Amino acid sequence: MVEIRKPIQVAEAVRLVMEHVTKLGTEIVPLENAYGRVLAEPIIAKHDVPPFDRSPYDGFAIRALDSEGASGNNRLPFHVIGEIGAGHIGDRPIGEKEAYRIMTGAQIPENADAVVMFEQTVESGNGFTLRKPFEVGENISFKGEDCKKGEQLIEAGTLIHPGTIALLATFGYAYVEVAIKPVVGILSTGTELLDVADELEPGKIRNSNGPMIRAQLDRMGISYKSYGMAADELDTCAFVVEQALAETDFLITTGGVSVGDYDYLPAIYERLGAKVLFNKVAMRPGSVTTVAALDGKLLFGLSGNPSACFTGFELFTRPAIVGMMGGTNPYMPRMKATLGEDFKKPNPFTRFVRASWGFTEQGVVAVPAGFNKSSAVSSIARGNCIIVLPSGTRGFATSDEVDILLLGSELGVSEWTL
Amino acid sequence: MVEIRKPIQVAEAVRLVMEHVTKLGTEIVPLENAYGRVLAEPIIAKHDVPPFDRSPYDGFAIRALDSEGASGNNRLPFHVIGEIGAGHIGDRPIGEKEAYRIMTGAQIPENADAVVMFEQTVESGNGFTLRKPFEVGENISFKGEDCKKGEQLIEAGTLIHPGTIALLATFGYAYVEVAIKPVVGILSTGTELLDVADELEPGKIRNSNGPMIRAQLDRMGISYKSYGMAADELDTCAFVVEQALAETDFLITTGGVSVGDYDYLPAIYERLGAKVLFNKVAMRPGSVTTVAALDGKLLFGLSGNPSACFTGFELFTRPAIVGMMGGTNPYMPRMKATLGEDFKKPNPFTRFVRASWGFTEQGVVAVPAGFNKSSAVSSIARGNCIIVLPSGTRGFATSDEVDILLLGSELGVSEWTL
Repeated sequence: MVEIRKPIQVAEAVRLVMEHVTKLGTEIVPLENAYGRVLAEPIIAKHDVPPFDRSPYDGFAIRALDSEGASGNNRLPFHVIGEIGAGHIGDRPIGEKEAYRIMTGAQIPENADAVVMFEQTVESGNGFTLRKPFEVGENISFKGEDCKKGEQLIEAGTLIHPGTIALLATFGYAYVEVAIKPVVGILSTGTELLDVADELEPGKIRNSNGPMIRAQLDRMGISYKSYGMAADELDTCAFVVEQALAETDFLITTGGVSVGDYDYLPAIYERLGAKVLFNKVAMRPGSVTTVAALDGKLLFGLSGNPSACFTGFELFTRPAIVGMMGGTNPYMPRMKATLGEDFKKPNPFTRFVRASWGFTEQGVVAVPAGFNKSSAVSSIARGNCIIVLPSGTRGFATSDEVDILLLGSELGVSEWTL
Repeated sequence: MVEIRKPIQVAEAVRLVMEHVTKLGTEIVPLENAYGRVLAEPIIAKHDVPPFDRSPYDGFAIRALDSEGASGNNRLPFHVIGEIGAGHIGDRPIGEKEAYRIMTGAQIPENADAVVMFEQTVESGNGFTLRKPFEVGENISFKGEDCKKGEQLIEAGTLIHPGTIALLATFGYAYVEVAIKPVVGILSTGTELLDVADELEPGKIRNSNGPMIRAQLDRMGISYKSYGMAADELDTCAFVVEQALAETDFLITTGGVSVGDYDYLPAIYERLGAKVLFNKVAMRPGSVTTVAALDGKLLFGLSGNPSACFTGFELFTRPAIVGMMGGTNPYMPRMKATLGEDFKKPNPFTRFVRASWGFTEQGVVAVPAGFNKSSAVSSIARGNCIIVLPSGTRGFATSDEVDILLLGSELGVSEWTL
């Protein structure tokens, strides 16, 4: 008896997964450990930036009114009363025809309202002359021109990248409230699996999905517990799954989700009382991708086929993990590209083709990364995007416009739009 | 006296930096630590993939010739002699009208040359019947169809990403030869700098460049030694620079590279006998970016202005670090976008504008991330790309086509093309 499964569309599968995501709460970390985390609080400007009027150049701070009437024929003289390096402040306000020598980033002294760059002056003795008038505010970086105290600059739910770190440092966030990261359990199932260090044996292959998923999690900065490889034996698998669920926040299994005689994950979900969100998606590769929910935890049953496993992770697992951290941009960025090569095989399901995009004279061109069956492993190692070919009865030809999803992009997007 | 510096073009600066990069050699790491490293050896297929003919479906392995003449009116019977789960092999070759029940991924038994899916059969007793003939090779994943033994699949110099890990695991690379990573020294200079945890003081700002650069290195998986902050004092700075050079492979300083009275980096380079590759680049922000070379090590003098510092790192420092590891794709990916907002200020230098790109009905649209002076910090925290506006006398308007460089992209490109 073959079980008949009803495939659902990818967008619907994404929606179901995200609907079942449970957030894990927040914690406080020192700024130096905050890179790559998801902000759990907004970044609020704690003061104006710049915090004071300052000089954007090396030059002289003057009163603009003292420069009125200056010209090539009427150079006006200024007396330099001191020097202000960055981090220092002037001793006293400047008076008529007085100036401070001032360095980039230094605070404008009292009464000054313009900065003259060195190259606009002729220095003489303890002063200089000018040949043009300056306007009030000329060459001044004003207090608050970058941001104003109290302004909300970055929303909670944003990934902390290097630019975010600069902003947090500016406002003295020595500690930052971030989302707690889930600990993910990984279990590879399949009697055919050997360890990486094992010699090949007849009928067997090395486990590539386990190491690949660990790297997909490494890329996200997410830690994991590896439960190794389980042979296709129901009680053993069920025992390991239960143990993993007790010890982790999220479980990824590979293999065992099809309808074969030794595909035990469906039986394990049933035994545990997990709610199966879907067990068939209208996509290639990865149509057998199965996701279940139990006590607020998600169980991802990814295909044992490497290409299918990779794609299932990027489409569903990664967004779910980002979602558990309250991340507001969990999806791969999408754009259009020109197909660089024929892809003639039509498919009743949406097809995700591992590919390389590059910028050429024809604009963005995406070329399939090679052998593209769901069992393929070589194409996963090549390329930087996934071409998405809609389901239908026709193939695709060179120069067709197609959608691509960018892999390995630091910042994602907020909506799934395919 | 103001020193007059001769600006060079960005492409020339990139070329000069890359020309002075010294590679650090290679080391062997376990596969589980290989993510994010640069391959120092090519990945060679150590065996065919798949390593044996295998079944891509759950079904029955048969001899195609036994199905000749099958039709709806003439269902042909097969006798099932056993079952082959993935990882197992058949006990004996199949004979006339015999079949093995076979699972996805299992090795095709001897004499079989086609697989019939369960749904194409009617099971009866210890056998089944067929209603159509099968061709030799139908539904078989052939040995070597993904890759052939001896084939070079991935070149040395490639970044190891999750897909690469899958391929390495497949071929039993329990250990991988990768490029040694440089240790980078970071020194922030400037008397105006406070630590992140300090209260603001008149004339002072918190050091944001140091934490930002640490995060830019974290993002690359590169370790660093932080030499804190040095006040603008020549002997102190020179001492710290010498110490850092002795202890690290690569030095990044921020601030002190302009022509102000306290900009000591030029003097320090001279004192050390370092060869200054350039000290002015025709770009905004970051025109004062200075790079020097000494005894095979590069010294990056980035601007103290946050936006300029960020941009200088992404344009020059990051590619140099990737280059030290023999990485063949050190540059940010480039593409075209529609400008989403006017940018009216013309500039005699190439302008790099921090921005956000997104995919809309108008295609890829890039919008500047806000306040865009070189001293800006808020805009660095926003956005996912840099708009590149060529130098000239005109501004740019909404809907103009512009180049953008993608930030935070796992895989870069091999050439600088702007």
